[in-house]
Amino acid sequence: MTDPVDLTARLVRCPSVTPEEGGALVLLEEMLSGAGFACTRVDRNGVANLFARWGEKAHPRSLGFNGHTDVVPIGDRDAWTHDPFGAVIEDGWLYGRGATDMKSGVAAFAAAAVDFVRDTPPDGAVILAITGDEEGDAIDGTAALLDWMAEEGERMDVCLVGEPTSPDHMGQMMKIGRRGSLTAWFTFRGRQGHSAYPHLALNPLPAMARLMDRLASHELDRGTEHFDASTLAVVTMDVGNATTNVIPAAGRATVNIRFNDAHSGASLSDWLRAEAQAMAEATGVGIDIRIKVSGESFLTPPGRLSDLVSRAVQVETNRVPEMSTTGGTSDARFVKDHCPVVEFGLVGHRMHAVDERVRIEQIEQLKAIYARVLRDYFGDGAD
Amino acid sequence: MTDPVDLTARLVRCPSVTPEEGGALVLLEEMLSGAGFACTRVDRNGVANLFARWGEKAHPRSLGFNGHTDVVPIGDRDAWTHDPFGAVIEDGWLYGRGATDMKSGVAAFAAAAVDFVRDTPPDGAVILAITGDEEGDAIDGTAALLDWMAEEGERMDVCLVGEPTSPDHMGQMMKIGRRGSLTAWFTFRGRQGHSAYPHLALNPLPAMARLMDRLASHELDRGTEHFDASTLAVVTMDVGNATTNVIPAAGRATVNIRFNDAHSGASLSDWLRAEAQAMAEATGVGIDIRIKVSGESFLTPPGRLSDLVSRAVQVETNRVPEMSTTGGTSDARFVKDHCPVVEFGLVGHRMHAVDERVRIEQIEQLKAIYARVLRDYFGDGAD
Repeated sequence: MTDPVDLTARLVRCPSVTPEEGGALVLLEEMLSGAGFACTRVDRNGVANLFARWGEKAHPRSLGFNGHTDVVPIGDRDAWTHDPFGAVIEDGWLYGRGATDMKSGVAAFAAAAVDFVRDTPPDGAVILAITGDEEGDAIDGTAALLDWMAEEGERMDVCLVGEPTSPDHMGQMMKIGRRGSLTAWFTFRGRQGHSAYPHLALNPLPAMARLMDRLASHELDRGTEHFDASTLAVVTMDVGNATTNVIPAAGRATVNIRFNDAHSGASLSDWLRAEAQAMAEATGVGIDIRIKVSGESFLTPPGRLSDLVSRAVQVETNRVPEMSTTGGTSDARFVKDHCPVVEFGLVGHRMHAVDERVRIEQIEQLKAIYARVLRDYFGDGAD
Repeated sequence: MTDPVDLTARLVRCPSVTPEEGGALVLLEEMLSGAGFACTRVDRNGVANLFARWGEKAHPRSLGFNGHTDVVPIGDRDAWTHDPFGAVIEDGWLYGRGATDMKSGVAAFAAAAVDFVRDTPPDGAVILAITGDEEGDAIDGTAALLDWMAEEGERMDVCLVGEPTSPDHMGQMMKIGRRGSLTAWFTFRGRQGHSAYPHLALNPLPAMARLMDRLASHELDRGTEHFDASTLAVVTMDVGNATTNVIPAAGRATVNIRFNDAHSGASLSDWLRAEAQAMAEATGVGIDIRIKVSGESFLTPPGRLSDLVSRAVQVETNRVPEMSTTGGTSDARFVKDHCPVVEFGLVGHRMHAVDERVRIEQIEQLKAIYARVLRDYFGDGAD
């Protein structure tokens, strides 16, 4: 039996602060190669990624796991009570950067996969797609792996992302979709002037204030069958005018929208542009917008894949996981264009914080859940 | 006859960039002492000011002139076509920083006063209160002169400020009052959070946007008998959040109000505080305000003093000056607490700009106007 706690500890000791490989993927490649996996390093633009397949290429029965070994920076070293790369175990906790997010998740599915193919070799393929760039720009991470797979004719039937998914208790929540994310940068241009002669100037700030108020007050929706309501946050407004007797020429504002399946990046972009256009016409202020859609919303409707994972969680934890679409974005936003994808992992405790840590029995429990997913997928439970 | 153009040129050659004295007040003191004026340097906190009186102290018949010799910085030296401290005369224009604002004004009233007391010594006092700090903070300028005068028992019956007052043509406009000016700095405090979980944060920016929109949209008044409508300008809004996935904890905004005699600094402060309080209660966002009233509005109602100046302008320019209360603030806001005050001076052409310049015949014309004011005040026209 492969020990997922020991593997987590060895991964935590690799200083793989994004985008550094730090030895983590090398360690996994060595272990997986030894277990009969065909491994390929799919590096792009200096980012390291690992593709590992046990079994036949493009087998119609192929279960994939996706995860990442890169971690966020440690922050204030002095605030940590244990070496952030020491993987010290104390009172049942394993401490270190990546202990939760998500070296334990990678260790759990890698250990489960190695044991499964050794003990009960399936008629099908087990695929591990592991990236070294999820916490950074994520441009050359899972996206690069999926691009390479498409070129090579590699495929997964379904995919399980091992990111932490539960807010408080093991088994509490799985993710069957994610909201989309869009950021819009607005620039408002008027005409500078003296505060004492406002009629000779065109102050862009009332238009900026009114448009931001309008956008922040707008109800995008009230939620959909599987999603919470979409949200819009005004994240900054900046002018930088230190002079109280000058009306400024320009102002800038930024909004971030997290949106459900009632919208798309395109529909929201159209709405924002129409609102800006109307405000520009009403005020004479020039309004430019730059928009970036970081991810569209997506949903893997409850069904075969989510049931498979849900049953495994129930058996191992005695909890029925909520099928949620909450939270930020994850690499599932890339995988969903390739095959149905759900996410299940640990409690998201102290992710990105100092003294990030994980309960060692939860790593073992997570391995057991992933092992049951493998058995059920390739056994009777998969139909 | 004292040549006001030559005196302007000599003053322009003094590099009296605020708060530097630059030799300008020394030059005036020497000239005025020689003409029989009792001169006192009234310096405070490193700022130079000059009080000069011809005639008896506290005489009930005393006409004062007020002006300043400090100038704003030259800005981009390379953009000037002539030495900004050279006082070069070309094609009837005298070039230099302070040519318009307001060394020519000081030269015109000083030259008029010297000639007047020499040629037709009046039964009364002529007072020149000249400061070296009008363009800066103005805390230790005319205010210091007036404080000193009160302590010493010095007084003026009426005062004429020699600032430029006409937008386009000599004699077009005089000022019989000024709007007040108030600046309010707002700080909005919420609770930081992740853009994906806005319900866990309290975004201060929608409250900031809505309050600024409310204030900018509010009609303070529609003008009063002698004043244009009061104006409110939102001059800056700043957050400085570079991260699109973070809801910020705080934002800042500043508004500047120019107000007429329908309001006071106190009434507007009350209004701003009430608006902020209502917004804070409606949103839960903490809103702090800091308010500074730079000057209350004031009016010297049309009458003896304004008629005196208006008649002199009409005779010398063939124009009836408009009695205006427009524009920014001036040192008249201090003088009005001491005695009735009006303002008349040159065309405000290129004030504070590069290639500041003045038509030399307008300096001569201004001296003639001030001379007529002196004659009329102390002659029959003063009653």
